[in-house]
Amino acid sequence: MDYADFSVASRLAHIRPFEVMRLLARAQALQAQGRDILHLEVGEPDFPSPPAVIEAGQAALAAGQTRYTPACGIPELREAIAAHYQRMHGVSVDPARIVVTPGASGALLLAAALIVNPGDGVLMADPTYPCNAHFMALFDADIHRLAVGPETRFQLTAELARANWRAHDRLLMLASPANPTGTVVTLPELAQMAEFAREQKAALLVDEIYQGLVYDGASHTALEVADDALVINSFSKYFGMTGWRLGWLVAPEAHIEAVERLAQNIFLAASTPAQYAALAAFSPETQPLLEARRLAFAERRDFLLRELPKLGLKTPVIPEGAFYIYCDVSALTEDSFTWCEELLEATGVALTPGRDFGQTDAERWIRIAYTCDVPRLAEGLARIARFIEQRRML
Amino acid sequence: MDYADFSVASRLAHIRPFEVMRLLARAQALQAQGRDILHLEVGEPDFPSPPAVIEAGQAALAAGQTRYTPACGIPELREAIAAHYQRMHGVSVDPARIVVTPGASGALLLAAALIVNPGDGVLMADPTYPCNAHFMALFDADIHRLAVGPETRFQLTAELARANWRAHDRLLMLASPANPTGTVVTLPELAQMAEFAREQKAALLVDEIYQGLVYDGASHTALEVADDALVINSFSKYFGMTGWRLGWLVAPEAHIEAVERLAQNIFLAASTPAQYAALAAFSPETQPLLEARRLAFAERRDFLLRELPKLGLKTPVIPEGAFYIYCDVSALTEDSFTWCEELLEATGVALTPGRDFGQTDAERWIRIAYTCDVPRLAEGLARIARFIEQRRML
Ligand SMILES: Cc1ncc(COP(=O)(O)O)c(C=O)c1O
Ligand SMILES: Cc1ncc(COP(=O)(O)O)c(C=O)c1O
Repeated sequence: MDYADFSVASRLAHIRPFEVMRLLARAQALQAQGRDILHLEVGEPDFPSPPAVIEAGQAALAAGQTRYTPACGIPELREAIAAHYQRMHGVSVDPARIVVTPGASGALLLAAALIVNPGDGVLMADPTYPCNAHFMALFDADIHRLAVGPETRFQLTAELARANWRAHDRLLMLASPANPTGTVVTLPELAQMAEFAREQKAALLVDEIYQGLVYDGASHTALEVADDALVINSFSKYFGMTGWRLGWLVAPEAHIEAVERLAQNIFLAASTPAQYAALAAFSPETQPLLEARRLAFAERRDFLLRELPKLGLKTPVIPEGAFYIYCDVSALTEDSFTWCEELLEATGVALTPGRDFGQTDAERWIRIAYTCDVPRLAEGLARIARFIEQRRML
Repeated sequence: MDYADFSVASRLAHIRPFEVMRLLARAQALQAQGRDILHLEVGEPDFPSPPAVIEAGQAALAAGQTRYTPACGIPELREAIAAHYQRMHGVSVDPARIVVTPGASGALLLAAALIVNPGDGVLMADPTYPCNAHFMALFDADIHRLAVGPETRFQLTAELARANWRAHDRLLMLASPANPTGTVVTLPELAQMAEFAREQKAALLVDEIYQGLVYDGASHTALEVADDALVINSFSKYFGMTGWRLGWLVAPEAHIEAVERLAQNIFLAASTPAQYAALAAFSPETQPLLEARRLAFAERRDFLLRELPKLGLKTPVIPEGAFYIYCDVSALTEDSFTWCEELLEATGVALTPGRDFGQTDAERWIRIAYTCDVPRLAEGLARIARFIEQRRML
C-alpha cells in the first residue's frame, strides 16, 4: 500500500528546523553519558516560576479551574496586564485590547493570521528570532529579511525601512529587546517607524517578549508612542513561566473584533490554570523577586561583556536587554556552525550558531544565552579559552 | 491621527464568529440578573477533571515542571497515548507519530498548515464543527461544504466524496463521533474513504476528539483501517480536561519530520504541567471514573431520545456518540436562530442554533448538548414544552 502519498504544502520549504535542536539533542546525549554540559544555547531562564505563581496554579487546580475560559482570557488577567502597563510604563491600555494567548507564539500566530495575505510583503531584520520569520511563512508571506549589523545595533530603522520598502509590503516587524542580539529600539525610533507604517497603511508589529529584562536605562513599550502597533508579550521570560504557555497580544482598537474571532477559532482559549497562576505574577510579593532576577541577569551580562573580548569573542554592540549576547567569532573561525559543534564535543559548552538567526554573514556569529550563574559562566569561558588555545596550536 | 489604518487579511471574511457566543453572553447576563439558566449550548462536559489528573498537575507544579518540553511533547506522554491505542483499539502506533498539541485545536492547526496551500480544495460535510472549516479558511483553502442529511447520518461517504470531488481537492475531512450530530462513521466506510483519498493522492483527516464517548457499539479509531490518515484527538472531552488545552495529532510516518518542524515553530511546545497531569488520565484509578461518566452520558442521551419526540423536536438519526443531539425543529419554527433566542429569553434554556454548524437548511436545526444531569434535562424539557405550548396559543 502506498501510504500518505499526499504532498505537504509548499510553505514547508520556507520553514526550517532549528539547528540548535540538533545541538541540544547532542548536548543531552553527552550529558546522558556523564559529561558535564554547560547549557548556554537555550532561550529559557534558569530561574523556576516564582513560588507565588506555583501556589496560585495549585490553588486554581484545587478550586476546579479547569474549564474553557472566554476566548480572549479571563477578565481579571486582562485587567491585571492593563494595570501592569499603567504601573510600569504610564500608558493606559483598554483591557479589551489585550488578548491572552498560548505564549507569545500564540500572539504572533494571531497577528500573522490577522494581517498577512498570501504573497504580502513583510519587512524584518536579519538576524532575527527564527519563529518570527516562520510565522509569516506560515501564511505564505513574501518575507524580506534585511541584513542589519552593528551600525544600527542589529535593528531596522525608519530610514532603512523607507529605503527598502517594496510596494507590496504590508507589515514591518521588530523585536525589542531582540533575540539573538539583546538590543533595544529607542522610543523616538519606534515613533518614526510607527509613523512610516501609518504612511504606508501598513502594520507595525513589535515583539516585546523580553520586556522588563533591560539593564541599561528604563524598560519601554512601543505602546508609549504607537497606540496602533500590534504588541506581542509573554509570561515566559521576565515572569519565568515558559512551560505554562501564556502570553498576550495588544491589538489596535479597530481590530479587536477580528482578533477575537481568530482566537475563538484557533485556540478556543489559553490554558485556564495558567491564567489563574499568572495573576500572581503581578503580586506585590513577586515583584521584588523578579527585580532580583533582573539584577542577576545584569551581573552575568556585565561579567561576559568584560571577559569575552579577552578570548577574541567580539561584542560590537552592548546588548541592553534579554539574556543573549551575539558574538562575532570571525577572528576564530570561518564557520561558526562547525565551531559550535566542535566546541560542544571538545568542552561540553553548548552555544547557538548564527545560522539559526541570520541568512547574511551568519557564519560569523554565535549567540550566548546567559542562563546560568556567574561561576558556571566563568567555567564555560575557561573551557572556551582552552578550546581556542588548542585550536591555535594545531 | 489615523490609527491602525492597515486592513485585515481577506481570510477574515471567511471566518465567522460563533453565534453561540452571543447567546452564551446573553445567558450569562440573564444569570447575573438571578435567572436560573439551563446551559445546553456549550460543548464542554459538566464533569470536572478527574481527581488523579488534578493531583498530578499539582505534583508537577510542586516538582518545578514549568519549563519548555520537547516540541512534540514529553516522551512518557507520547508513549502513554500509544499504549492507549494499543489497549483500547488493538492498534500499534509508533510514539514518534504522536505529536502532543495545545488541544485538538492545535492539532487541527498543524494538520491544516501541513497540507493546505492557498486555493487548495477541501471537502467536508455540512453541518460541521465551525472551527474545522475555519482552520482551513485560515490557510486560504477553497472549502467545499457538502450538504449531508439524515440519509447518510450527516456524514460524508466514499460515494459522495467520489461524486463531488474536484480536481483541486487535496483534503477529505471527517469527524467521528461528529459535532453537532454525534454520529459515527463505520470502519468499513472509513476504509473506503481512506482508499479513495489514496487514489486521489489526497489526505484524509479524521477528527476523533469525541472518541471514547460512544454509546452504541464499540469505540473505534480510523487508525484501525487507515494508518496514513491524519488523526486528531484531545484530552478535552472524554478525559474532562478542556481548560488544560491538551490534545494530539497522529501523523503518517512520512510526515513526522515536517509536523515536528511546524510544532517547533508554531507552539514551541504544549503546556508542561498539563502534559504531566495528562499522564494520570490513563491511570488505572481514572479508567473506571471515565467509564462511569460515559454511562451517565448514555443515560442522558437515552432520556432525551425518548422525550424529545413528544415535544415535536425530531431526531431523525440516533447519535451514537459525543454529547450532542441535532434536532429538527422545522415543525415548530421556520427560523431556529430566532427560536433559540426567544426560548432563552422566555425560559432560560440555552441551545445552539444550526446556523453555527451548517450553511444548508441550518434554520431547521438546533443542537442540544446534554451536559447536565437528567433532572436538569427534564426541567429543561418541561420549560421547552411550556414555551412551545405558549407559542401555539398565540
Ligand atoms: C523574540 C521571541 N519572540 C517570541 C518567543 C516565543 O516565546 P513564548 O511562546 O514562550 O512566549 C520567543 C521565545 O524564545 C522569542 O525569543
Ligand atoms: C469536533 C471538534 N473538534 C475539535 C475541538 C477542539 O477542542 P480542543 O481544542 O479543546 O481539544 C472541538 C471542541 O469543541 C470539537 O467539537
